[in-house]
Amino acid sequence: MKKYDVVIIGAGPAGIITGVTAKKQNPDKSILMIREEEKGLVPCGIPYIFNNLNSVDKNSMGPKAFIDLGGEVRTDPVIDVNINNKIVKVQSGEQFSFEKLVFATGSKAVVASFIPGYDLKNVFYIRKSYNYIDHLFNELKDKKNIIIVGGGFIGAEMAEQLAMNTDKNISLIESEKFCFSKAFSHTLSEIATEELEKSNVNVHTSTLIEEVLGENGLVDGVRLNNNKEIKADAVIFAVGYKPNVEVAIKSGLQTNTTGAIIVDNYGRTLEDNIYAVGDCSQTLGFLTGRSDYIMLASTATAEARILGYNLFGIKIKNSFAGTIGVFSTKINELAMAAAGLNEKNAIPSNIDFITSQFSAFDRHPASIKDSSSLTVKLYVSPSDGSILGGEVWGGDSAGEIINIIGLAIQKEITIYELISFQIGTHPLLTSAPTMPVIIKAAELALSKIKSLKN
Amino acid sequence: MKKYDVVIIGAGPAGIITGVTAKKQNPDKSILMIREEEKGLVPCGIPYIFNNLNSVDKNSMGPKAFIDLGGEVRTDPVIDVNINNKIVKVQSGEQFSFEKLVFATGSKAVVASFIPGYDLKNVFYIRKSYNYIDHLFNELKDKKNIIIVGGGFIGAEMAEQLAMNTDKNISLIESEKFCFSKAFSHTLSEIATEELEKSNVNVHTSTLIEEVLGENGLVDGVRLNNNKEIKADAVIFAVGYKPNVEVAIKSGLQTNTTGAIIVDNYGRTLEDNIYAVGDCSQTLGFLTGRSDYIMLASTATAEARILGYNLFGIKIKNSFAGTIGVFSTKINELAMAAAGLNEKNAIPSNIDFITSQFSAFDRHPASIKDSSSLTVKLYVSPSDGSILGGEVWGGDSAGEIINIIGLAIQKEITIYELISFQIGTHPLLTSAPTMPVIIKAAELALSKIKSLKN
Repeated sequence: MKKYDVVIIGAGPAGIITGVTAKKQNPDKSILMIREEEKGLVPCGIPYIFNNLNSVDKNSMGPKAFIDLGGEVRTDPVIDVNINNKIVKVQSGEQFSFEKLVFATGSKAVVASFIPGYDLKNVFYIRKSYNYIDHLFNELKDKKNIIIVGGGFIGAEMAEQLAMNTDKNISLIESEKFCFSKAFSHTLSEIATEELEKSNVNVHTSTLIEEVLGENGLVDGVRLNNNKEIKADAVIFAVGYKPNVEVAIKSGLQTNTTGAIIVDNYGRTLEDNIYAVGDCSQTLGFLTGRSDYIMLASTATAEARILGYNLFGIKIKNSFAGTIGVFSTKINELAMAAAGLNEKNAIPSNIDFITSQFSAFDRHPASIKDSSSLTVKLYVSPSDGSILGGEVWGGDSAGEIINIIGLAIQKEITIYELISFQIGTHPLLTSAPTMPVIIKAAELALSKIKSLKN
Repeated sequence: MKKYDVVIIGAGPAGIITGVTAKKQNPDKSILMIREEEKGLVPCGIPYIFNNLNSVDKNSMGPKAFIDLGGEVRTDPVIDVNINNKIVKVQSGEQFSFEKLVFATGSKAVVASFIPGYDLKNVFYIRKSYNYIDHLFNELKDKKNIIIVGGGFIGAEMAEQLAMNTDKNISLIESEKFCFSKAFSHTLSEIATEELEKSNVNVHTSTLIEEVLGENGLVDGVRLNNNKEIKADAVIFAVGYKPNVEVAIKSGLQTNTTGAIIVDNYGRTLEDNIYAVGDCSQTLGFLTGRSDYIMLASTATAEARILGYNLFGIKIKNSFAGTIGVFSTKINELAMAAAGLNEKNAIPSNIDFITSQFSAFDRHPASIKDSSSLTVKLYVSPSDGSILGGEVWGGDSAGEIINIIGLAIQKEITIYELISFQIGTHPLLTSAPTMPVIIKAAELALSKIKSLKN
């Protein structure tokens, strides 16, 4: 039986970055990565396979950087882990012994077994599997009426992409009042939903699927809770993901209330030398320290970097105790992004906040060609003025401006500091120096806090 | 004689933001802003008047927000200030008395009196004056051969814009080896110069003007230090700006070695109740505390916000003791930006640094439509790993990524912290979560520091 210093289960973003980082730091350690399929996918790129990329292969991702550093990769699903004997067993029957083991098993699409008809032919999921998505890509080519259930990021983006430049009829069914409602504030989820409606997608919000309809085992529509029926050649469920932890649980690892493997700030499980990272591992909210559901490749890779550096002793401190959650997307030409707190998570957690909002153009003067509007909304602590959360929407630069806000949250920067924040501006690249969106929003928050205190 | 609580001299970005901020904080105070011309210009927008905007008026800027708040504006150049008697005198002869006075007089284009022929007809400058630029805009319409002297931001951007979609011959003369060499590192100023050469601009670097040539008082060319002559119908000098401090000096205010009015961190001059802000006021480098030449609208407005809040007592702390300088520009389709330290300012100041550089695409996967490359270069302190400076070039998001680096410098964030920096990523908006450019550059810097210590 071959023995490795480290075995990593999984070759998604968390597995790859853990492997690359650990191998770079410890070139003399033997590291094996075990994956389920030969090819991997960029998870957040999946919706774009269906239009922008128009190819599954263009969205593929693999552990090349890890292999280049001397890492080994095996394609053979792990079926069993023996923590006491430090042995991993794969489907083919082979076994590997390890000194340290990393679960980077990711998350898997929630199966809609609670909906009658969920098992009909042409009911699909948005699985993070190359082979599955390749199959889906081909299957959808000749389907005219497609229904997507679930208006979160993946569902909504998939609907938008499928509806672009096509004669297909795409419908999106969302149970909440607006799409994107898990990650975005009321304001932004409403804007995002309106934008989706402007695309070729038929958006049905505040709507539930009662049944997937079919004949001879084949999908032909859905019945909604308003008793309406919609015709469908394919139904795609995008109703969330859950940690992929079957093997981990079977091996005796403990999970938390959200079903994720319990780990500390350095990805260490309750068992010595056993680690977990990414979607399969516990996430704590940055303000509350409570278990949270954030599953993002960006968060996973941040955790993986920390784990990779610290697998053989804590060498680089983790600069965050809790996960902030920085989300972004683009529907039609509108980029939208959110970081940290909004009223959706603040109110249930009973966290005090005030908000402020400021809009300007993303170029200056506004008459510069290709100028778009840009809005920043800040969530600010009324006691100390620290930035708790923020949203940005408008032109593409929203995707990086949210990272300024993310950094401000992580470094506990206050609106009082932001007032004199030194920024760079340019007519062709940013808002005007007289109306830098984050700073102006900070000034409005300051006025609000001042008036509260008077 | 009318008396005001505050008189502000100047209606550029510094004057307007001081006025708006001060009036918002102190609605009961009477504030008068005195300007030289009826209309103002967005300073950094001036080059774009000549092509992108194709209009002077579209680049105009005025104190409307200040007036809306109840501020008063007078158009009448200030010719004299009596600090002891607290009186300002304008050209028409009228006088105003003040409680507090703010110099926001900006900077003015350096006149090329050191070059023979500088006073010929059709020698121009890039003055921050609406009337002058309006005149220049009209004058250049029928000029075919135009020479711009000075490859800093304004000169190079002006050259690029004038050369776009035109049959004019545009030449740019730069004394240094590369354009943009004051603000950008060797690496980036070389890249920027190559980009300029790809436009329709004839770029002459390492070249000096010996004489402006002419006949009958009219420009017809220039002679260079390599003895070559270039034909010209117009010559535009863009050889820098200097603080506009004549009235301030006459009034008895002290200036520093760079010719700017000496102020503290709150814009207070050495005289009670007399303030200076923006280009006319002293700038100190953020690391050295030495006098620096940074003149940017973004810096000026940051100073103006601090002054506006604190004119009647220090209420909001200034979060910076020195100016970082965040520069950005775009030539053709290449956005370029720099913040803080690079070898140009580090070596003369004897500041230790190491550099690291990382490139990726600004979308992911790289095959996403409209994906561009993106490079980040970091300047890092080898002793504590703090970020001292950075550069970003590639797609348009460089313009906001530099502000992440700017914030990192201001908050003294280290590469050790950046490793676990939580960011948001999206296929259509950012680099991949597996290769976030700033974090990857931080990792490379970390390896370098580690190898230095071994």
